[in-house]
Parts: sequence; C-alpha cells; structure tokens
Amino acid sequence: MIRALFADKPAHWEAYQTPLQRAFAAAGLDVDLVVEADPATVDYVIYAPASGLQDFTPFTRLKAVLSLWAGVETIQSNTTIRVPLARMVDSGLAEGMRDYVTGHILRAHLGMDIYTQDGVWRNDVIPPLARNRTVGFLGLGELGSVCANAAVGLGFNTLGWSRRAKDLPGVTCFHGEAGLKALLSQADILVLLLPNTPATENLLNADRLAILPRGAVIINPGRGVLIDDAALLAALETGQIGGAVLDVFRQEPLPADHPYWAHPNVIVTPHIASETRPETASEVIAENIRRCEAGESLLYLVDRAAGY
Amino acid sequence: MIRALFADKPAHWEAYQTPLQRAFAAAGLDVDLVVEADPATVDYVIYAPASGLQDFTPFTRLKAVLSLWAGVETIQSNTTIRVPLARMVDSGLAEGMRDYVTGHILRAHLGMDIYTQDGVWRNDVIPPLARNRTVGFLGLGELGSVCANAAVGLGFNTLGWSRRAKDLPGVTCFHGEAGLKALLSQADILVLLLPNTPATENLLNADRLAILPRGAVIINPGRGVLIDDAALLAALETGQIGGAVLDVFRQEPLPADHPYWAHPNVIVTPHIASETRPETASEVIAENIRRCEAGESLLYLVDRAAGY
Repeated sequence: MIRALFADKPAHWEAYQTPLQRAFAAAGLDVDLVVEADPATVDYVIYAPASGLQDFTPFTRLKAVLSLWAGVETIQSNTTIRVPLARMVDSGLAEGMRDYVTGHILRAHLGMDIYTQDGVWRNDVIPPLARNRTVGFLGLGELGSVCANAAVGLGFNTLGWSRRAKDLPGVTCFHGEAGLKALLSQADILVLLLPNTPATENLLNADRLAILPRGAVIINPGRGVLIDDAALLAALETGQIGGAVLDVFRQEPLPADHPYWAHPNVIVTPHIASETRPETASEVIAENIRRCEAGESLLYLVDRAAGY
Repeated sequence: MIRALFADKPAHWEAYQTPLQRAFAAAGLDVDLVVEADPATVDYVIYAPASGLQDFTPFTRLKAVLSLWAGVETIQSNTTIRVPLARMVDSGLAEGMRDYVTGHILRAHLGMDIYTQDGVWRNDVIPPLARNRTVGFLGLGELGSVCANAAVGLGFNTLGWSRRAKDLPGVTCFHGEAGLKALLSQADILVLLLPNTPATENLLNADRLAILPRGAVIINPGRGVLIDDAALLAALETGQIGGAVLDVFRQEPLPADHPYWAHPNVIVTPHIASETRPETASEVIAENIRRCEAGESLLYLVDRAAGY
C-alpha cells in the first residue's frame, strides 16, 4: 500500500479525488489517497502551495513531491524538499484552452449577447459565415497552436503571429514588428496567448489597439500584463474595440470595483480558461508514482539547480 | 448590360447588395442590380415572397426567377411566373448552422452564463474537458452531419441518431427506437436537427425528456414541432433539463408573453441559426445568371409540374 497525501485547497480535493482514484486504478496502483496523515507515513505529496504546506521536514519517508502546478518557481526554492520534485505538464491544459477560446470566438462571431431575453424578435441581422470572419492569434506556442488549429477547423480565416517565424497548416503566419501590424489590421477577433516577458508587457497598447478593425473583439486568456488596461478601456469607450473577454489580470481576484466588471462590453471570467484539469493531471500523477515505484525516472523532473 | 431586380424585404437588401455585386464581378457579369425598375426592363428577378411582389405579368422580358428561398411551395404555384424558376440551395446554410450549433454547445459546455458581471470571482468550478462531455445529435442529414463532425473535431464524445442506420467518422451512431433511448440516456447536450414529419412531431416528449441525464441542455435549431413545449417547461421547472437554447417555434415570432422568454434557463434566438447566407447564396444567383446568359440549364431548376 502506497500512501499519497493530497495537499491543495479543499475545492480542488473535491475535483481531484475521483479522477486520481480512477487514474491509480488504471495504472494498477494500490494507493491510499488521503488529505490528512501523519507525515511520517506519507510516500508521496501531491502538492500545490495553496494548501499552506511549507515545511516538508516531518515527511521522513517521502519518495517524491508531485506538483499540481506547471510553474514551480515558489516550490523549487523550498529547501525542506529534499526528494525529487516533478512539475505538472498537463495535456488537458491545452484542451481546456481550446474549449474556452473556441467558445468565446463563436460567442463574439455569432453576436450571442445581442439576443437579450426581452420578448423582442430581432431576426434582421444575418451574421457572416466563419469563412468571412478573421481571427488573429498572438502567440503560436503549444496553446496558441492548438487554438488556431481549432479555428481553422471551424472555417475561420485564421492568422497567427509569433516572435520567430512559424508555419502552421491553414494559418496565415506573421512574425516581427511589421507582421504584428499586418495581423492587427485584419483581425476581427484577436486572441492573446503570449507568455509574460519584458517584450510582451503592454504589447497591446493604445497605438496597436488603434490598428485593429473598428469594433474588433479581444480575447485574453494569456497574461494580464499583455494589455495596457487604461488604453483598452479608452478604446472600448470610443467603440474602436467592440468587446473584450478577459480571463487574466494584473491583480487577481480582479477587485470588485475595477471598471472591467461594470463595462457593458467586457466579459470577465475568473482565470478559469487554462486551469490544470483533474482528469489529465491525475494521469500524470499516477504515471509518476508508477515510475517511482518501478525505479524509473520521473516525468517532468525539476532540475533544481537550473531552477525549472 | 443585364438588369436584375432584387425583390426581398429591405433589411435583406442591405445584407445582399455587396455580396451580389461581388459575386457578379467574380463571374464576369455586367449586372445593373436594382430594387426598383420598370418591370418591362428587368431580365431577372431575385425573389422572396416577403417582398410583396406577386404579379409577374408586367415583367415582359423576364428570363428567369431566382428564388432566395429553399422552399418554393408558395412560389411555384404563382401562375404569373411563366419563365424558369430556380430555388436556392445554399452551402452557407450548413456552415452557418455549424457556427450556431458549435457556439451554443460550447456555451453550455463552458457554463458561460454562470459568470455574471457582478464583481464576484467564481473560480472554484473547473469545467470538464470536451472529451468528458457527451453531445448527442438527433438527425444526421446534411446539417446534422456537418455539426456532428465539428463536435468530433473539438474532442467531444459525439453520438448521433437517425431513423435509418448511418455511419459517420468519430460519431457513435444509433438508430431506431432502442437507439433513441440509448442516445438520450447519455447526452449531456442534445442537438435537434430532424425534419418536420408526422414521426418527429413532439418527438421530445415528457417520457423522452425523462431519459436524459439530469441537467441536460437541449439545443433546437431544427423545427419547433420536435418539442412538446409544455413537457419541456415542466422539465425545466424540476431541473431535469438544465437549459434550452431554442431557435425555432410553433409560432414565429415567438409571442412576447410566451413563458420561454421569461425562463431563466432558456435562451431564445429568433430563427437565425439556419438563414440563407448572402455570400454563398449570391454565388448561386450569379452562377445561374451566367448559365442563363450562356444558354445553359439553371442550377436547382424547379420542376413546376412535380411541384419542387
């Protein structure tokens, strides 16, 4: 019997308990999965810092720490962890992002929000077909590529931009500063899936917002810092930007008095686009326990000297 | 110079004017497209009965009537039309239906409507991945097949039912009465794309609504008569049905006092899912004018003796 301690916030325990048990069974592992235990009896900690657990010293027979988070900056610096540490690389992350991005592209494309339930039959607007709607993706990494591919599959005229030149089937690809302007000038719907780097901070500033077609919709499930918030609010006021779907913010939770909440053309979602998904993350956890028990090396092992 | 009279309601003129002119140019046709003309000068009427035009007798040099409607029951019985009549077969119809159905599947899947803009950060619900959500399609004709294929592409567990056995890639297909029950028992999201026949009227009655998983969402862009409205309202009240997106109704426009409008878990859209689309319909119109001018036979020519 292997004992695994689930150390994350309680709401996640509800979400993870069944998928983890299913994944352990599928991997042929006999695991006693608990949320409380004498530390000296625990073989594995399934871990998120949100649990509050910081001191791993009492976990005297620990074999590995299996992070539920992709980013382990705060975990790898914990000097009480003296066993192998694996970070989470979750295939469900990209799938969930595809669901979110595709859903909100179609929401904007179809003008879903004009059909208020007020008894008025507004059938005089014929929306264009997807093939006559241009969707631009800033960022063509794993997430951007998966989402752009879905847009191609649904028939959208699909553009993509990345720092270095890329080539994706069905996607008109741009790169560099000139390429960014070319993409922005055409994108009816703009999806931001860039990483947070000094070069991407405030990438979408007043000048670049002005290049978009009038009434363009922005979908940002990437990083809060990609957008100059004051510039976006100003562009929403003038109608230059027709709408924004925002999932990430400089400050989270987004303060209740932030103007984004109150703006009629902004949809705020609470950083739910790209959560690690219990079903797929549980498979990674189970596979790593299986590997460790079999004496194999862990998937996604953190190189703690390099820091990632 | 060819003169074509656009005879449909004014809102459609706004939607069709540019696409028609673009399609004429692409076909190399020099067309004087007008909404008013001396009937004796008109070569083609681009026609919908909603225009009010009924008497074609004054159109003395008319070469053909090009219907904007797929159903020509009311047009083909007009005895003042003595020239070839073509009905509309619009590839955009299926594409637009795919946009609508896919968008509303994702809206239900993502639970978009729980994120009210009230300043409350509700990030404790992790939606399942598409692969863990089952979407069932009743009807696998041209429209149902295209929509089911899109659901497969987005990773949904996709089921389909048709009267006769069918086989579609990636879709678990059912048929017959037993197959209908099997599909209903699994469908988290149910899409109705069946035709209106005596066998499909009230197909979704109280007994069959009870077979669906509790909280299932129904999307009906097919025909109003497919649903027993009283049974659906009762199932919405008990929570057996979690939501309904309805585009078609027994009476249209849906009366302003109909309970569907006021129900918090019903989304009414005004029969906009499957409109003929100006871009693609204009290509059909242009092709038929080209054919007629070249002495070729028209596409989708109505056999007026047979009545379709």
